[in-house]
Amino acid sequence: MFFHRQEMQHKATPDAPDAVYARKLQEVLGGQYGEISVAMQYSFQAWNMHIPGKYRDLVYGIAAEEFGHVEMLAIMIAQLLEKAPLGITDEAVQSDPTVAAVIGGTDIQHGIVAGAGARPVDSMGNPWQGSYITASGNLLADFTANANAEMQGRLQVARLYHMTDDSGVRDLLKFLLARDTMHQNQWTRAAAELQEEGLELLPVPSNFPIKKEDRDVSYEYINFSDGEHAKEGSWASGPTPDGKGEFTYLDGPQSTVPMPPPTHPDSRFYGTTELPNRVEKIAGAVQDTLHKE
Amino acid sequence: MFFHRQEMQHKATPDAPDAVYARKLQEVLGGQYGEISVAMQYSFQAWNMHIPGKYRDLVYGIAAEEFGHVEMLAIMIAQLLEKAPLGITDEAVQSDPTVAAVIGGTDIQHGIVAGAGARPVDSMGNPWQGSYITASGNLLADFTANANAEMQGRLQVARLYHMTDDSGVRDLLKFLLARDTMHQNQWTRAAAELQEEGLELLPVPSNFPIKKEDRDVSYEYINFSDGEHAKEGSWASGPTPDGKGEFTYLDGPQSTVPMPPPTHPDSRFYGTTELPNRVEKIAGAVQDTLHKE
Amino acid sequence: MFFHRQEMQHKATPDAPDAVYARKLQEVLGGQYGEISVAMQYSFQAWNMHIPGKYRDLVYGIAAEEFGHVEMLAIMIAQLLEKAPLGITDEAVQSDPTVAAVIGGTDIQHGIVAGAGARPVDSMGNPWQGSYITASGNLLADFTANANAEMQGRLQVARLYHMTDDSGVRDLLKFLLARDTMHQNQWTRAAAELQEEGLELLPVPSNFPIKKEDRDVSYEYINFSDGEHAKEGSWASGPTPDGKGEFTYLDGPQSTVPMPPPTHPDSRFYGTTELPNRVEKIAGAVQDTLHKE
Amino acid sequence: MFFHRQEMQHKATPDAPDAVYARKLQEVLGGQYGEISVAMQYSFQAWNMHIPGKYRDLVYGIAAEEFGHVEMLAIMIAQLLEKAPLGITDEAVQSDPTVAAVIGGTDIQHGIVAGAGARPVDSMGNPWQGSYITASGNLLADFTANANAEMQGRLQVARLYHMTDDSGVRDLLKFLLARDTMHQNQWTRAAAELQEEGLELLPVPSNFPIKKEDRDVSYEYINFSDGEHAKEGSWASGPTPDGKGEFTYLDGPQSTVPMPPPTHPDSRFYGTTELPNRVEKIAGAVQDTLHKE
Amino acid sequence: MFFHRQEMQHKATPDAPDAVYARKLQEVLGGQYGEISVAMQYSFQAWNMHIPGKYRDLVYGIAAEEFGHVEMLAIMIAQLLEKAPLGITDEAVQSDPTVAAVIGGTDIQHGIVAGAGARPVDSMGNPWQGSYITASGNLLADFTANANAEMQGRLQVARLYHMTDDSGVRDLLKFLLARDTMHQNQWTRAAAELQEEGLELLPVPSNFPIKKEDRDVSYEYINFSDGEHAKEGSWASGPTPDGKGEFTYLDGPQSTVPMPPPTHPDSRFYGTTELPNRVEKIAGAVQDTLHKE
Amino acid sequence: MFFHRQEMQHKATPDAPDAVYARKLQEVLGGQYGEISVAMQYSFQAWNMHIPGKYRDLVYGIAAEEFGHVEMLAIMIAQLLEKAPLGITDEAVQSDPTVAAVIGGTDIQHGIVAGAGARPVDSMGNPWQGSYITASGNLLADFTANANAEMQGRLQVARLYHMTDDSGVRDLLKFLLARDTMHQNQWTRAAAELQEEGLELLPVPSNFPIKKEDRDVSYEYINFSDGEHAKEGSWASGPTPDGKGEFTYLDGPQSTVPMPPPTHPDSRFYGTTELPNRVEKIAGAVQDTLHKE
Repeated sequence: MFFHRQEMQHKATPDAPDAVYARKLQEVLGGQYGEISVAMQYSFQAWNMHIPGKYRDLVYGIAAEEFGHVEMLAIMIAQLLEKAPLGITDEAVQSDPTVAAVIGGTDIQHGIVAGAGARPVDSMGNPWQGSYITASGNLLADFTANANAEMQGRLQVARLYHMTDDSGVRDLLKFLLARDTMHQNQWTRAAAELQEEGLELLPVPSNFPIKKEDRDVSYEYINFSDGEHAKEGSWASGPTPDGKGEFTYLDGPQSTVPMPPPTHPDSRFYGTTELPNRVEKIAGAVQDTLHKE
Repeated sequence: MFFHRQEMQHKATPDAPDAVYARKLQEVLGGQYGEISVAMQYSFQAWNMHIPGKYRDLVYGIAAEEFGHVEMLAIMIAQLLEKAPLGITDEAVQSDPTVAAVIGGTDIQHGIVAGAGARPVDSMGNPWQGSYITASGNLLADFTANANAEMQGRLQVARLYHMTDDSGVRDLLKFLLARDTMHQNQWTRAAAELQEEGLELLPVPSNFPIKKEDRDVSYEYINFSDGEHAKEGSWASGPTPDGKGEFTYLDGPQSTVPMPPPTHPDSRFYGTTELPNRVEKIAGAVQDTLHKE
Repeated sequence: MFFHRQEMQHKATPDAPDAVYARKLQEVLGGQYGEISVAMQYSFQAWNMHIPGKYRDLVYGIAAEEFGHVEMLAIMIAQLLEKAPLGITDEAVQSDPTVAAVIGGTDIQHGIVAGAGARPVDSMGNPWQGSYITASGNLLADFTANANAEMQGRLQVARLYHMTDDSGVRDLLKFLLARDTMHQNQWTRAAAELQEEGLELLPVPSNFPIKKEDRDVSYEYINFSDGEHAKEGSWASGPTPDGKGEFTYLDGPQSTVPMPPPTHPDSRFYGTTELPNRVEKIAGAVQDTLHKE
Repeated sequence: MFFHRQEMQHKATPDAPDAVYARKLQEVLGGQYGEISVAMQYSFQAWNMHIPGKYRDLVYGIAAEEFGHVEMLAIMIAQLLEKAPLGITDEAVQSDPTVAAVIGGTDIQHGIVAGAGARPVDSMGNPWQGSYITASGNLLADFTANANAEMQGRLQVARLYHMTDDSGVRDLLKFLLARDTMHQNQWTRAAAELQEEGLELLPVPSNFPIKKEDRDVSYEYINFSDGEHAKEGSWASGPTPDGKGEFTYLDGPQSTVPMPPPTHPDSRFYGTTELPNRVEKIAGAVQDTLHKE
Repeated sequence: MFFHRQEMQHKATPDAPDAVYARKLQEVLGGQYGEISVAMQYSFQAWNMHIPGKYRDLVYGIAAEEFGHVEMLAIMIAQLLEKAPLGITDEAVQSDPTVAAVIGGTDIQHGIVAGAGARPVDSMGNPWQGSYITASGNLLADFTANANAEMQGRLQVARLYHMTDDSGVRDLLKFLLARDTMHQNQWTRAAAELQEEGLELLPVPSNFPIKKEDRDVSYEYINFSDGEHAKEGSWASGPTPDGKGEFTYLDGPQSTVPMPPPTHPDSRFYGTTELPNRVEKIAGAVQDTLHKE
Repeated sequence: MFFHRQEMQHKATPDAPDAVYARKLQEVLGGQYGEISVAMQYSFQAWNMHIPGKYRDLVYGIAAEEFGHVEMLAIMIAQLLEKAPLGITDEAVQSDPTVAAVIGGTDIQHGIVAGAGARPVDSMGNPWQGSYITASGNLLADFTANANAEMQGRLQVARLYHMTDDSGVRDLLKFLLARDTMHQNQWTRAAAELQEEGLELLPVPSNFPIKKEDRDVSYEYINFSDGEHAKEGSWASGPTPDGKGEFTYLDGPQSTVPMPPPTHPDSRFYGTTELPNRVEKIAGAVQDTLHKE
């Protein structure tokens, strides 16, 4: 159950209107790694979790914070759009190339569709979608997904920081950067704790019976490109992070198998086949026509 | 530049047809964490990388292998479909509920669209899409994304392993499980090596100027749910993984700010506003009508 | 700012597992008119609203409730999946056509992707997307959108009610039906109140200058099909709901204009044009080759 | 059956080329509430309708008109693009910032993909999609959806009106504004007529057995935010529009239930669970390995 | 301008209900190569065409027919669904595995969303989308696209023919097969006529200045796989269809170029770079912090 | 199996940065007819093919080349972005309208998401998707799809050629134009060879029993628009390309059938029906309430 309070965790007011920047901010609201994504990802992880206690409380605890971040960004975007030119005709403005340039870089739907409001889309106007999120039920996999989401998110906010001089916007971004620092640390720690407690280990899923895996190739680096330097990495020799093997390096696959012959599905799918087969196929079709029609 | 060889890394021939299972296998071919995703993700990471040498050779080296995995799964799927019932009418079959049940669980487009062939879609028929992949230019973020992709991928293959008894299919899955074991280990190691070499550190991006972040909240766990157990985790107290702070625990936000007042965009967006404002708006519209029309 | 409480508005526990029904319930969780849609729609309407007070408090007040409904459905779905067959091989089961039939009707990704958990998708597996929602800034338009969303939503829940005998599921649906009854009444009332207060009137947007509209055709029913009965409706004669006109009925358009001639864009777009033009085009290309190359 | 006539309901010729405006017009051609949406929505409502006579003739009669509106907009867009700069290199132009600015704001695919032609997309380039439309078979719900579509559509056309000074474009928009005025009035009237005739009533669906609904909460406004003003609305007290109840106001939920315990699906989904359970799981896996392999 | 007549080109009434087949028919209504696609494709080609006369009349003439085909399929689907089991609970039915199997293979949204009506989706439930269509302004390219669309369409209808015994359905399919025969012949002929009249030739676009192309590789078959048989085809030797060259066969690329060095974008994008560069980057960031903050 | 070599078929280095052009190039990398589409289309055709030998070797041979073209474009795009302004704040730049204009026309995600790298999207930012490709198993249909893809692709590259003066970019485009010339010729020839060898003929699928088609309408041009000139084409009279008939011309359909009556699905879908029926429906609901509740 969620409760809303008409306050915010942090101030979200720009110094000045900037519709082009409003469009850019949409990326961290409604993009692949925007706040909607993390809010929904942590929520679904909570609802799908099989274990009560600290891990479940953790995802519940952060999910609600992230919905609040969606809100702060939406409110910031609406204010950035409030007095900005969004294409309403005005002769003085039309002849000013700087203004025309600005309008060219805006999200057209901010004006026409939302009336100068925020939208559930990314910076190129793609609607947010459910396929951005990950909630598998396996916590080591999912916390790694979360760590990645916070890394990509903080990276995008850092880039956005350098794309504006507005101190009000930067003030909010500083806050979001700090929360992303926290969340990166948090998911990294939680993933480590899962392993320390033996709940999940590498490789994920760690309790899949090891005998059912083709162990011969479990620790081989097989190089399918012609770069020579990959063998210098610690992923090409030495112990493996899962503690169960040693990396080896192979320059390409050592053995291969021939492809199976092409398939020959039912002739009534009308795929193209060799002529002999085709003769039969036509004969069959004729029969078919004579008898079944 | 890519070269194709008409051989495979591993045998990919089922014991028997199984159209329902063919549909399930589509998940790891064309789903969010399927082989197309990792092949394209590693390729774009290689093309966007700013640093020559072992890390770039690594992503190039694995990307091409993954395209070969797409191929093995496509060929397996075509064979699973080859002799399987896909809805072609046959009275004997129609009255058999087991056959009808099987057909009900197939990917309809396997028959109608692909003529008993593989498709670039997931197990629910959603087309593969570019928004599944991640290639940010920041290697610690991207290798974490890669580790997650291999974890989710191996998890899905493990689940698929238990959904068939076909020894030919299981033989291929055993191989894929092992390669995913390798790739999880590899990306985990590569992410560690980046940090050991000081190329990237936590938090990502690590060379964003720390003074530009709101450090007060960089290590605070702020609980927005009412679960009490999140404070027991090592993400709520003790040193942070980035080595720069100490986690603290807060039961909810300690300070908040009021929301800014609602925005009042140009009246020609026709958003609903208070009455006084509305009177002006109508007056303006009247003026507008009288003078501009 | 959102706060989460680990309780629910209503009980959400099924009597028995039912994976096929779990898939059906996804429609009202993650479909076009599911709970994610209304939660996000009301939230964006709140963030984009230009007027403080009762209308804004209204959308804030309901938005948070709807996020809680998403949660109840997700938790119900996870429980419906908990002990249900999802394709894990078991000889006894495989030979039972009823079980095979059931599995054929499940959401394949419930098992393979979510490990028997809920997903942000509809009943056919399409991911939820931002383009489902409406938040224009004009409240009469948006409250009409909301009334429609609650109508379509309640209709779907009513249909789902008849698709199960599970008393636990039905108990939750009874609650959701009642809340949808409330919300239909509420948005209908709110739309009426907007008009009673003169904030917005028909047609939306009501303060667009009437002289800028082609009033001749503002109240004409123009019949472009050959059904004769549309003229019997009160939309073909009598006063119009906006109080400003009288409906009239026309059997097809009364006047038409010829199409403008086809366009002739720059020849370097290589569209196909008439031959004379084409001769010039080739001549130009030759010149172009001689001089610019 | 549809017949096409190479004439138009209204003139659709701009005074001058304007590629940026052409892009904006795409919103009302191929956007969520564009003309393709209403043409397809009314068509599917006609095809799915269960009742002959005036209501079915109504949706058939308007659907065909709307396809003609798609056509007018497409033809207008092609003409706006005809002589406009779309990126073809020309030194004089390249150094002119106004021209560069204009090109920056165009739909890139208008030139590269369509050769200066219209496209089935919205103003941000998102392709039109079937999930924009609504055709449920319940006419009160669907006519409310139609009223909303015409409201959102007219609102967008009104905004577009203020984004151009081109008298040819405005002439077409005046016509579309008037038709949207008609269609808003028409669907409002048709929805009222359905209720006057007793075919459908509030709440939709009105003949769902009232005893199967949890009537205790059917008319309660439950406030999940902390705004105090929602209680002032006529949706918080007084009679309900469906004529069957009285609104009441609650400040938050009055009773709640605890969440059910987390689920424990089959261990072969490899979700993370508590340790004791995990021990069993590993034991099981070992057994599994010994006996089944 | 489009006019609708409440008649059909051909009878569209099934002998018996069949909800599973209704779902399959959705493919040729709302799939990639369904009737919505060709109706919209031909319409946009007409609206974007630069040449009046027979070619434009041709696309206009067929486009409207195709909208009528959409209608026939929608009406057929609604009838197939009319009395078919769609999941409404009925004890007798629930225990019958055949019925359960049938329900498992239906489009869930046919019942829950459309109330036993047709939908603008394909057989796997993916909504129709604007990106299925092609209208480039170049008629040889577009008529080739049209020929392909009719080929894929007829192929799918032929497959669907074998998936039912219903004589009413087959009667409609026979009609559609014949119209697809016509349309394949028609587009093939129209593409030939364009070339006979010299309006467009191979390669498309034929009036692009030949000197601006790298003619050395214009007719080389370059084999990037290791199959030996491609050289046996008439695409590997002999005259080329465009009449301007001779095919040659190369076993792989004859010359290649080294990759350019990796890029080094602005350090404020925080991509990972080599250490020396990184030192500068950090130094820069420090400066940045000292001076700009 | 695919192998990667860190070389390219052709040089891909621009003279100068140009972020706007980088965005435009995305169309032929990740658009509907971009290089990802042909690479994947030919690959799936190979994997689904039923016939060994020259045709299969052909699609394998070209598929791998096309993946190399994806790479060349990605590397070109990264270099075009390398030193180009992408929105990083710099006062000198901000006040320059030309620079602002340029930034307005860029792909925002090139900077924020990819850190000045290429993306798997088209020029309007739509992610590449699996539904762009065609692989039906019928080679005449698929080779026609391939010919179309190469035509649309070369057309787009030709347009892009005129949108830049950069000699490095043009050098790559000249190469791609030539390869598209080859591939158009090749697929045209391969389609002809299929027919010469009698493997597939017109109409596709050619071995569908002719008696199962409604031959009366197989060669009729039926004009559903009012243009008079379509009858002048060789598709309206004379022999048909499939060699089996004569085209005829009809001005509209010669016979039509009435629509079937509207459907009446189960009342528990709550679609709107006539009143008599409705009375029964309500009666039924009452019964239902009394007895089943």
